[in-house]
Amino acid sequence: MRLTNFSDYALRLLMFAAAQNRQVTIEEVAEVFDISRNHLMKIATVLTRSGYLKAIRGRSGGLILGKLPEKIRLGDVVRTTEPDFALVECLSSSDHCVITRRCCLKGVIHEALDAFSATLDRYTLADVMLRPGDFGVAPAA
Amino acid sequence: MRLTNFSDYALRLLMFAAAQNRQVTIEEVAEVFDISRNHLMKIATVLTRSGYLKAIRGRSGGLILGKLPEKIRLGDVVRTTEPDFALVECLSSSDHCVITRRCCLKGVIHEALDAFSATLDRYTLADVMLRPGDFGVAPAA
Repeated sequence: MRLTNFSDYALRLLMFAAAQNRQVTIEEVAEVFDISRNHLMKIATVLTRSGYLKAIRGRSGGLILGKLPEKIRLGDVVRTTEPDFALVECLSSSDHCVITRRCCLKGVIHEALDAFSATLDRYTLADVMLRPGDFGVAPAA
Repeated sequence: MRLTNFSDYALRLLMFAAAQNRQVTIEEVAEVFDISRNHLMKIATVLTRSGYLKAIRGRSGGLILGKLPEKIRLGDVVRTTEPDFALVECLSSSDHCVITRRCCLKGVIHEALDAFSATLDRYTLADVMLRPGDFGVAPAA
């Protein structure tokens, strides 16, 4: 069972922006976590569209948090970034399983996923907030 | 977020064996669910090693449940068949994330996974049991 790298990196990007509490750039996030700039661009687009980040355009542009950290629930973020909560075939749109119609496993898996989501919803970005120096970069002046 | 097909098929194999309540063969399970015989062989090996199935050797051999359905907790099965509960990089052995040492997200994800597992543990194979006919095969005489 895995979350996509997309979700993993989205959480890190938000944690970085929250900790720095200033405008950050894709370049610096890519360098801090040693992850692809292109991948981060796509993630930033999704997070901006969902209001978790705000994009400042222009030459001295960058990204800042779009909401207060305590308003960003981790469950909401993961449900935004995770394309596929289809843990088993019967939860996906391409289901061919012969027992789907009568199967009760689907309900059990749904309930377990809800428990997973509900736990993440008890935490916000503020609960997992780090200090600027925890990322190995100097705090902004 | 996905479980591996390995876990998905393992659950189906156990549900089939439980419903038929007789010796079943890999061939018939492969046919019922239209999944690879080779893949099922590997799954049966793991389930047999863990005591969920018993292998009857020989020409008229096959597989039967190794425990009563009500003794087979779904959480135990999934923890046996799912190789990788490393939802995010910091939960895996190949972790390179720069903030791992100070990061509190790890604890939150662990707690969510525990909630997922604990939900599955409230159910056994007996709770998701089907009738032999639900698989589109005739009940054994």
